[in-house]
Amino acid sequence: MRASFDRQLDSLRGRLVWMAASAASAIRWANLCLFSADLTVAGQVLDAADELTQARRSVEYRTFELLATQQPVASDLRLAWAGVQVVGDLDRMGVLAAHIAKTMVRRHPTPVVASPLVDVVRAMAAIAERLAWDLARLLELNDPRLSAAIVRADDEMDGLMRRLFQVVLTDWSFGVAAAIDAVQTGRFYERFADHTVSAARHVEFLITGQRPG
Amino acid sequence: MRASFDRQLDSLRGRLVWMAASAASAIRWANLCLFSADLTVAGQVLDAADELTQARRSVEYRTFELLATQQPVASDLRLAWAGVQVVGDLDRMGVLAAHIAKTMVRRHPTPVVASPLVDVVRAMAAIAERLAWDLARLLELNDPRLSAAIVRADDEMDGLMRRLFQVVLTDWSFGVAAAIDAVQTGRFYERFADHTVSAARHVEFLITGQRPG
Repeated sequence: MRASFDRQLDSLRGRLVWMAASAASAIRWANLCLFSADLTVAGQVLDAADELTQARRSVEYRTFELLATQQPVASDLRLAWAGVQVVGDLDRMGVLAAHIAKTMVRRHPTPVVASPLVDVVRAMAAIAERLAWDLARLLELNDPRLSAAIVRADDEMDGLMRRLFQVVLTDWSFGVAAAIDAVQTGRFYERFADHTVSAARHVEFLITGQRPG
Repeated sequence: MRASFDRQLDSLRGRLVWMAASAASAIRWANLCLFSADLTVAGQVLDAADELTQARRSVEYRTFELLATQQPVASDLRLAWAGVQVVGDLDRMGVLAAHIAKTMVRRHPTPVVASPLVDVVRAMAAIAERLAWDLARLLELNDPRLSAAIVRADDEMDGLMRRLFQVVLTDWSFGVAAAIDAVQTGRFYERFADHTVSAARHVEFLITGQRPG
């Protein structure tokens, strides 16, 4: 019984790492298709997002069964608890990557990001990708320094969002539709980053047993 | 032991109803301040949102303790499980109401909603408020018809968001900042509605034991 229980917990942990890597691929492809206007890559993003949603449901289902049948305590309960919160965040990260890809498809072949914003949005895209990989490594290695790096990168993201607003609200000559696309795309990256922070806080709880403030 | 456990579950259920009513007040005040430009009411929204965040943390903490010490099964476990998901949604609803209030404060005394959008945004505001009250009643009465009404109202909300985009992208003469404000405010209402649907699905699981698809 205990051996099977341990296997289930190991499988939960493995599933979380796999989902985080999948969210990282989703945002990498979303970034690629945003700047390359490659419709094939957009399809890959949507597929990855769907897989993440299915994986979340499966983890939720199995964790509920685990709580109902095995009644874990201490660190096992923390893993089950944090796992459910983290898969919620990972699913939302996939959905946000899909929103970015869909914005590109809707505007195709017009680029979503107007020229004065390319540098800012590229920087946001790079941070989102780094955050997702850091989260995957955090889930694999349980190194709290990764969690601190995630919080710092989220601050950078907020700074870039303010910069994006400055550009759009000052001497903007690309029209209303392009302004709305830019702000929405920026918001998708910003919320993607927020979910990596939220997930990292749950992993901290998992590692230390200390509830984040 | 069992009597104290039952009291804890009753208190969890009561806390959920109270939080849903609080989210409903938050969005009612947010709507009021969006259209009346009353800065005092904006403060009430932010206070309500903070209280919801604290209440979520407290419910999460107590539910974790409950799982660790009482190891509930069957419908008790479902209540604990759904409760944690629902407080997450209720907290986010408070945050979104606060975003609406903050948008108003940032633009004050300029109105956030330009004249051609007043009807659409008023309709979105009314639906958000109704959804939040329906959710509070659903948590209190466990009536699955309320859950169906919530899903229908969310569809209406999506239709209004499309209408808002049409107005902003056709013959818009109020400038880029007003267009961005309008779209962001619409998105806040839309996401508020999405969270009521998500919460309603968790309540369905709580009532029926059937996992939503």
